[in-house]
Amino acid sequence: MRQSQLFSKTRKEAPSDEVSKNAQLLIRAGFIHKEMAGVYSYLPLGLRVLKKIENIIREEMNAIGGQEIELTALQNKELWEKTNRWDDSEVDVWFKIANDKSIGLGFTHEEPLTRLMTEHIRSFRDLPVYAYQFQTKFRNETRAKSGVMRGREFLMKDLYSFNADQAGLDEFYEKVSDAYKRIFERFGFGNNTYKTFASGGAFAKYSHEFQTVCDAGEDIIYVDEAKKIAVNKEVYTDEVISDLGILKKDLVEKKSVEVGNIFKLGTRFSEPLGLTYLNEEGKQVPVVMGSYGIGPARSMGTVVELLSDDKGIIWPREIAPFSVHLLCLSESVRAHADALYDELISRGVEVLYDDRDLRPGEKFADSDLIGIPVRFVVSEKTIAENKVEVKQRASPDSELVLTEEAFKLL
Amino acid sequence: MRQSQLFSKTRKEAPSDEVSKNAQLLIRAGFIHKEMAGVYSYLPLGLRVLKKIENIIREEMNAIGGQEIELTALQNKELWEKTNRWDDSEVDVWFKIANDKSIGLGFTHEEPLTRLMTEHIRSFRDLPVYAYQFQTKFRNETRAKSGVMRGREFLMKDLYSFNADQAGLDEFYEKVSDAYKRIFERFGFGNNTYKTFASGGAFAKYSHEFQTVCDAGEDIIYVDEAKKIAVNKEVYTDEVISDLGILKKDLVEKKSVEVGNIFKLGTRFSEPLGLTYLNEEGKQVPVVMGSYGIGPARSMGTVVELLSDDKGIIWPREIAPFSVHLLCLSESVRAHADALYDELISRGVEVLYDDRDLRPGEKFADSDLIGIPVRFVVSEKTIAENKVEVKQRASPDSELVLTEEAFKLL
Repeated sequence: MRQSQLFSKTRKEAPSDEVSKNAQLLIRAGFIHKEMAGVYSYLPLGLRVLKKIENIIREEMNAIGGQEIELTALQNKELWEKTNRWDDSEVDVWFKIANDKSIGLGFTHEEPLTRLMTEHIRSFRDLPVYAYQFQTKFRNETRAKSGVMRGREFLMKDLYSFNADQAGLDEFYEKVSDAYKRIFERFGFGNNTYKTFASGGAFAKYSHEFQTVCDAGEDIIYVDEAKKIAVNKEVYTDEVISDLGILKKDLVEKKSVEVGNIFKLGTRFSEPLGLTYLNEEGKQVPVVMGSYGIGPARSMGTVVELLSDDKGIIWPREIAPFSVHLLCLSESVRAHADALYDELISRGVEVLYDDRDLRPGEKFADSDLIGIPVRFVVSEKTIAENKVEVKQRASPDSELVLTEEAFKLL
Repeated sequence: MRQSQLFSKTRKEAPSDEVSKNAQLLIRAGFIHKEMAGVYSYLPLGLRVLKKIENIIREEMNAIGGQEIELTALQNKELWEKTNRWDDSEVDVWFKIANDKSIGLGFTHEEPLTRLMTEHIRSFRDLPVYAYQFQTKFRNETRAKSGVMRGREFLMKDLYSFNADQAGLDEFYEKVSDAYKRIFERFGFGNNTYKTFASGGAFAKYSHEFQTVCDAGEDIIYVDEAKKIAVNKEVYTDEVISDLGILKKDLVEKKSVEVGNIFKLGTRFSEPLGLTYLNEEGKQVPVVMGSYGIGPARSMGTVVELLSDDKGIIWPREIAPFSVHLLCLSESVRAHADALYDELISRGVEVLYDDRDLRPGEKFADSDLIGIPVRFVVSEKTIAENKVEVKQRASPDSELVLTEEAFKLL
C-alpha cells in the first residue's frame, strides 16, 4: 500500500487522558482511535494486526478440530437466570438495555452456546464438539485504564468443548494448552509466557491461565523459573505450593498479563441448561464442558508493551501490519523506488511504501513509530551502488545489500 | 470437511414462531440459530456463507480505494447530540444502556467516523478518504419478522466517503453504484435488482437504493422494466415521475427488499462535528460526505428467498458454503469416496463430504436442503462404470461423467 493513500496520520503526542503505553503508542502510530474509556476503534494499520492475530488463532483452533461459529451480543435474561448469572449481584460487568430490561450484552457465551447445542447434540455419536468464535464482548469494567488490554468492548476468541466424559475433556484440554503455547510463540512473546495455576471454581481443582510477564500487567504471579511453573496470587497458598511440588523460596513475584485462560467447566452449564446426551448404555447423562479464551486486542497490547523502544513499536514478523516498509528518500529516486514497490507487490510481499513528499527525517521517525520489522530505503546513495539499504527495526544497524539478496530476507 | 464432523444437524421442522421463509430454511438446514426475535447466531455453514459475502464486498470496496477499519458499538450521547440524533424522539431504534444512560449502541456510524476524521484530515492534500467496515449494528426494530433480512443485531458493511467538493462526491458516488451492481451480480440476484430513486433528505434531491424484487420484501417500488428505472413508493409522485422522464402507465408495482443504499450526505455531519479542511486558497471549508450500506445477512436472506425450491436452498456458486457436496452412498464404496475426497482437497476444492452412516435417501434430502450447487455421488453403480454421478442443485437431471471431467465442472 502507498502511504500517501493511507488516511491515518501519526502524531507526536498521545491524548492526555491516555495513561497506558500500549494505547499511547498505538494512537500515536495511527493504529487505533479512542472512542471513550476502554473503547477503541481500529484504523487500517491496527485492523491489519488484529486480523493477523485472529488468523493465527483460527489456524491453531482449526488444527485441533475447532468449528467456527458466531453468536450474538444481545442476550436474554431468562436464559442467564437458569445459571444464576443474570443478577448484577452475581455478575457486576453486565451492560443491560434501558428500554428492555430483559436484554443484556454478553460478557461471555457459555449459556447461549450450551442452549444452542441442545438442538444438535443428542447421542454419544454427536460428541465431541469443539466450537469457537471471534465475537465482541461487552463488560462494564470500572477500571479500564490499560488501553486495549482491558476493554469495555473487545473482540474475544472463545472456544467451548463438549465431551462425553471427563477423560475426553482432560485430553482436549491438553491439546488446547499446546495450541495456546504455539499461538503465543507466534505472537512473539512465548518466552515471557507461563502456564499458570489458577482457581478452578466449583468443578476442578485448578484452571490455567497463560500469564505473560509484563510491567503493565494487572495480575501478580509467582514464578519458578527453573521449573517453568507459575502460580496466580489467588491460589498462592502453602497448600497449593506443596501440591505442585515447588518451594516458596524458588518463587519470584512478577507482574503479568493474563493473555489466555483454559477452564474445565464440567457440568456447571450443561446440567442447569439440560444439555444431555444418550450414552452407549441408553442413559441420558450431562455433557462435560470446557471453555478457552484469548483476547486478540489484549495480545496486541501486550506485544506493544513488551516489544517497543523509545522510538516506537517493534512488531514481530507474523503479526506485523506489513512485512516491509519501503522508503523513497527523494524525488530524484522515485522511479527506482516505484519499480522496487511494483516488484515487491508482484512477488506477493505485503509492503507499505512511503511515497509521500516529506523530509527523510520525518519518514524515518514515522517508520520507527509504526514498527514494521524490515525497512528498505531507496536513496541516491543506494542507487549509486545498485543496492538497497536494509534495516531490521529491532536492530540499530543497517546494511547495503543487492536487491535480490534483500528479497531473500523477507 | 467431513460431514460426520460438522456439529450442526438438519431438521424437518422450523421453530413454530419463525414466519419467514429465509429463517425457516436456514434454521432447518443448520446455517443459523435463533436467539430471540431478530437475533440470529451463525453456525459453521452459515458463517461460511456470510464470510464469502463479506469477502466479495471487501474485494469490490478495496477496488474503488476503500480502506478497511472497525468502529465500536458503544457510542456516547454527547457526540450524537451534536447532530440531533440521540433523542429517542428523533431516532426510535436506539438500544441504550440501563446502568449508564449516556451510552447507546450504534445503529449507524456517521458521527463517530466524522469525529475520528477530524484527527486525520486537515488539508486538501489529505482528501479524498474512503473508509469502510464490517461492523455489528444494533437497532431496536419493533417489526423483526423477516428472519435475517431485518435483524435487531446484524452485520453491516458501511462505507463513508470524504471529498473536498461536490464534484468529487458525485464521481465517487457513481463508482460505488457500479461496484454495488457487480456485488449483487456476484451474489446471484443482479438481474432482479434495480437502482431505485429514493428520498435524498436535506442535502440531495435523491438518494438511491438497490431494491431486489422479492415477494418477501417489505418495500414497494414502481418499475419501468424497459428503461430499467425504479422509484421507491416514498417518492412516487407525479413530480418525481415527470422529473425522471418516465410515464406512470409504464410503471409496475412490485414488492422488494432494500439490499443496498447510497446516500449523498453533503455537509450534514461534517458541519456540526467540525470536520473541515484547509483548501488550496487557504480557507477552512467543510468536507463533503457520502454513505453507502449493504447488509451481508440481508443479502444472504434475499438469496434464500429467491433461490430455493420445495426441497431447500440453491446457493449461487460464489457464496455457497462449499463448492461441491460429495456423497458416499454405501459402506462398500467408502474407500473410493475417501480417495475422491482426498483428491478434491489436494486440488484445493472446497468440499463437504457426507461420510455419515445414513441411508441414501437421508443424504439426498440433506444435500437438497443445504443447497451446495454441485453434487458428486459415489455408489456401486458409478464405480462399476468408473465414473461419478454429477448433479447441479438447480437442475433436476444428473449424469455419469469421468472423474477427470467432473473436476472441470468445479
